[in-house]
Amino acid sequence: MKLVECVPNFSEGRRLEVVQEILDTIKSVSGVRLLDSSSDHSHNRTVVTFVGSPESVKEAAFLATAKAAELIDMEQHRGEHPRIGATDVIPFIPVSGVTMEECVELACQLGKEIGEKLRIPVYLYEEAAIRPERRSLGAIRKGEYEGLKEAIKTPERQPDFGPAEMHPSAGATAVGARPPLIAYNINLGTSDVNIAKAIAKSIRGSSGGYPSIKALGILIEETGTAQVTINVCNFRQVSLARVFETVKSEAERYGVNITSSEIVGLVPLDAIVDAVAFYLRLAGFKSDQVLEKRLQES
Amino acid sequence: MKLVECVPNFSEGRRLEVVQEILDTIKSVSGVRLLDSSSDHSHNRTVVTFVGSPESVKEAAFLATAKAAELIDMEQHRGEHPRIGATDVIPFIPVSGVTMEECVELACQLGKEIGEKLRIPVYLYEEAAIRPERRSLGAIRKGEYEGLKEAIKTPERQPDFGPAEMHPSAGATAVGARPPLIAYNINLGTSDVNIAKAIAKSIRGSSGGYPSIKALGILIEETGTAQVTINVCNFRQVSLARVFETVKSEAERYGVNITSSEIVGLVPLDAIVDAVAFYLRLAGFKSDQVLEKRLQES
Repeated sequence: MKLVECVPNFSEGRRLEVVQEILDTIKSVSGVRLLDSSSDHSHNRTVVTFVGSPESVKEAAFLATAKAAELIDMEQHRGEHPRIGATDVIPFIPVSGVTMEECVELACQLGKEIGEKLRIPVYLYEEAAIRPERRSLGAIRKGEYEGLKEAIKTPERQPDFGPAEMHPSAGATAVGARPPLIAYNINLGTSDVNIAKAIAKSIRGSSGGYPSIKALGILIEETGTAQVTINVCNFRQVSLARVFETVKSEAERYGVNITSSEIVGLVPLDAIVDAVAFYLRLAGFKSDQVLEKRLQES
Repeated sequence: MKLVECVPNFSEGRRLEVVQEILDTIKSVSGVRLLDSSSDHSHNRTVVTFVGSPESVKEAAFLATAKAAELIDMEQHRGEHPRIGATDVIPFIPVSGVTMEECVELACQLGKEIGEKLRIPVYLYEEAAIRPERRSLGAIRKGEYEGLKEAIKTPERQPDFGPAEMHPSAGATAVGARPPLIAYNINLGTSDVNIAKAIAKSIRGSSGGYPSIKALGILIEETGTAQVTINVCNFRQVSLARVFETVKSEAERYGVNITSSEIVGLVPLDAIVDAVAFYLRLAGFKSDQVLEKRLQES
């Protein structure tokens, strides 16, 4: 069974009746299952997770983008998280029976449809990027909604689909394909945020660490805990076990222990199985030996 | 959704057309999903795994027992594994939405039906045992099929259901309820089987180790590898991580490493999640954060 995950981010995290209308639009598409939705007030942003067949997921993403364009006015939007549009970003993620190439193709089809039918400019990003400098979302979001209004008219910021001007209410949208991302936090036995920052720097790609790892050192105010907050962007390249062991080894250099770690949101079974295989030195274990997986496949 | 697993063992591992007829009988029951079947020539035995609603699983187990009684003649059966009947043992295992008590009740109902309708004597074992000495399958199988023909007439070996004499072709059957069992092997960096035996002795319940662990030390002839072969009978009491770490620590006493380990057959997701949680020091992680589990539940 072909199964694709889609995790669109919408620039609305406060008016929950608006979020509900978008969720209802997604749920109305046959063959789509809504798995998760998380609205953040200070980010003023909602992250939605749904899965389904390639066709049904594409349809739901298109309808949700149209609905968001109708209900969200970027001229009124304020929030901490960088964003360029009402539907800020739409990634497709292969789950089962689907290749990354098929997800790239899906992103291209959806981008074309959003550009032509909704008249919203679309940038293809990550695995779907046509221009190499657009692999990174950060580059696409440079200047954010406000800055892109002018910049979009220059050749280097021209969208891949749709008009070279911002949609009056919905702004622009990034559409792409990527491996599953795991949000993973590691808590240290110290309140010294500088240690967390130094460890984050040592593991993240942007400062010479693992290319598929993003990381920051922060202080959790309520508990006085220094935390390395991590995006594991390709767990098949760098597993949860390797991230944990690298952070553990770096922390030891400061005489600091890992007190706990947290997986935020959903995680693919294979990422869990990889970690167990590492620690138990498992030979020849396959994730379809997991009873629940076998059940799903039967 | 109420889901029960059933893992009956049949005394036929060579005539695969007979095994196929039994599998077809199980698959014919609506609501039952056949997950696995493994036939062993030297044991002359087949282990079948299927799941479904409590009622459908009970029906499939009954029909399979009737079919095995028709096709397997214990008078002709030879094989290495201890056994008392054509359908040697039928355990029910809670998977989701079902308590152990419900599985015990299911075992009682099935035992009664097999005893009364098929005239096969039935012994209730493990969690379903009425007599405490029958919790252990070993006690029920004492003397095996051949020895039980006479012993069944004595008060202490009287069956819980059915006639106090062996069925002429099908012998007797043990029916019970138990937690999921994980078959787990740990390979040592030595060919000295005595080290594997000493480690097995230190972890198994029968010699003072963990009550829910069964273990033997054996030599894998083909590779010259000493192996601790383990049944983890209750992973919520003793996790895979604790078994691995205990064996690792005991092996170190002999200067021996663990080279690899193997999970044989199916393993519940929770057992994998428990192991990851141990090694990554995960706080607050729930197995429904696993994408595939969430999918199954949605």
